[in-house]
Amino acid sequence: MPASIPAYDLPDRNGQVILSSRPAGVPQAEHFTLADAPIPAPGPGEILVRNIYLSVDPAQRGWASSVANYAAPVPLGGPMRALAVAVVLTSRVEGIAVGEFLYGVFGWQDYAVVGPDAIFHRATQDLPLDAFASLLGINGVSAYLGMTLLGRPVAGETLVASTAAGSVGSFMGQIGRALGLRAIGLTGSDAKVALCTERYGYDAAFNYKTADLDAALADAAPGGVDVYFDNTGGAILDTALRRMNVAGRVVQCGTASVVSWTPPPAGPRNEREILTRRLVWSGFLIFDHMARYAAAADALADMHHAGTIAYDIDLAHGLAAAPGAIAALYAGANLGKSLIKLG
Amino acid sequence: MPASIPAYDLPDRNGQVILSSRPAGVPQAEHFTLADAPIPAPGPGEILVRNIYLSVDPAQRGWASSVANYAAPVPLGGPMRALAVAVVLTSRVEGIAVGEFLYGVFGWQDYAVVGPDAIFHRATQDLPLDAFASLLGINGVSAYLGMTLLGRPVAGETLVASTAAGSVGSFMGQIGRALGLRAIGLTGSDAKVALCTERYGYDAAFNYKTADLDAALADAAPGGVDVYFDNTGGAILDTALRRMNVAGRVVQCGTASVVSWTPPPAGPRNEREILTRRLVWSGFLIFDHMARYAAAADALADMHHAGTIAYDIDLAHGLAAAPGAIAALYAGANLGKSLIKLG
Repeated sequence: MPASIPAYDLPDRNGQVILSSRPAGVPQAEHFTLADAPIPAPGPGEILVRNIYLSVDPAQRGWASSVANYAAPVPLGGPMRALAVAVVLTSRVEGIAVGEFLYGVFGWQDYAVVGPDAIFHRATQDLPLDAFASLLGINGVSAYLGMTLLGRPVAGETLVASTAAGSVGSFMGQIGRALGLRAIGLTGSDAKVALCTERYGYDAAFNYKTADLDAALADAAPGGVDVYFDNTGGAILDTALRRMNVAGRVVQCGTASVVSWTPPPAGPRNEREILTRRLVWSGFLIFDHMARYAAAADALADMHHAGTIAYDIDLAHGLAAAPGAIAALYAGANLGKSLIKLG
Repeated sequence: MPASIPAYDLPDRNGQVILSSRPAGVPQAEHFTLADAPIPAPGPGEILVRNIYLSVDPAQRGWASSVANYAAPVPLGGPMRALAVAVVLTSRVEGIAVGEFLYGVFGWQDYAVVGPDAIFHRATQDLPLDAFASLLGINGVSAYLGMTLLGRPVAGETLVASTAAGSVGSFMGQIGRALGLRAIGLTGSDAKVALCTERYGYDAAFNYKTADLDAALADAAPGGVDVYFDNTGGAILDTALRRMNVAGRVVQCGTASVVSWTPPPAGPRNEREILTRRLVWSGFLIFDHMARYAAAADALADMHHAGTIAYDIDLAHGLAAAPGAIAALYAGANLGKSLIKLG
């Protein structure tokens, strides 16, 4: 259980952030409206939760899109799909107790009625509540599982990660260092470069808006790159691919640098790089690996307690902060995991 | 040992096909000249072989290029690097006997002096000699190992292969069928389409020069594609990628459709396909897997004896046939594995 249970209040209506129009690319504040509704009541096999920390995640762009990818689009007029840390107020599910803290798909709203399928993780580790939506949230667990399952790192190898100060990337350098890798971070501002090397475990970091990335990688990784963990796609990816060693692994975890995929933008063809370098380029989606979630969360909590992994929160307050938060995330405005505290 | 040992004669000079100028893309006849040299003598740890079947392979384009990929460029003025089936005339290597037949990197020439490293396979299976440069050559073994090691097929899945009537592709349908897959072949002429379905084990095949490939794949693989074995790259690859199922495997074995890689041509960005479909896209090069060569050759020989895999040879005669043979291969002019018989 969390070390300290924060106070939370109970509004008498269910405030909600509604997806009111369909974004073509990154959702902006104008695509959402604030509304409220009666507090819902759980049926058999359901629970009522009060959200405490709403999460703002890159994945929400895909969820708001009309283009089906791995999940059905959020219905227009419905509350925005989102992860959150919540406390159980009413339980009609055996084994889930009132007062228990959970992390799951509870939406951008004050209250949610959900079944057990919506729960990603039960907050059993001894950590502050916000850790369950950051270090132990899908971003921290994606960093850990993406690296270990698909990156298949070997001590002494060189790791490069993009969005290196972001909600996933900030853990890559620290996990990489813990695994004995040399870690190089690519990020979007000089302030984030400093965070990468001073706080997030990277041996070197570069601002991809100002550096000559190819030259910087050649200099920082003279022996080539063994694992590239990509959250951006685009030209950054093309450059990193051409610095990979034979038998290198490329983990595709996000495509944050590409504004729109309809139609897909053009870039240099990469299949000859895959062939001649014998790369393994894999797509990582946390939802394929939920059976390993709890074990990954335990490992991350242990690392945190041992002092080998830190996490940062970029905190906003109140439902009204939500509509513009995804656009701010894609603009790189946050330092740390973007969360919104309710109550 | 081969079932029948063909007659072979012994010229008194070593005829050679020399790489005389550096091609920018696919090597043409004009990049080579015919020459001859004294028959070389083996030193300690070397053997002298007489080539019997010279092989013509897509990989020779890369070997002739000045751009280093997985192998050093063939030196200008030297004999063209090539695979061949040969007989041992003199042996200064323990365990290699005069009269033994070998398959290895012996070059486009009458004779070669090589060390044991040049030998890919000893012709121990009971098959005609030409089988060792086709079914049991790097093309057949690449089809078998690329499919099993990187394609990781499961019975009932759907396989798509490009250059489906080619020296690798002609085995993909047959191996796929033997593994319980539904196999769809993509090839470059109506005659090859007929070969694919009538002889090479494909359940369906399409001419990518005339078919609407996306519609054809949608029709032939309504449940999507699980394994895509790509020998072409380019637009064919882009179309097939967008028909892949979640967790599909893409094996990059060649890029025959792309005329030049300097600079790389542009195409639609594919990283979002990798991410949302959670593909695993791997580069396959036979030289990474030589430890499995003999076992794969045994498996292919067994399949041939059981009647489940056929092979075809497109045979030319004499060294003078070699210079134009790579260009003919890239033009798709051959039906069956392109070999040149000497003597």
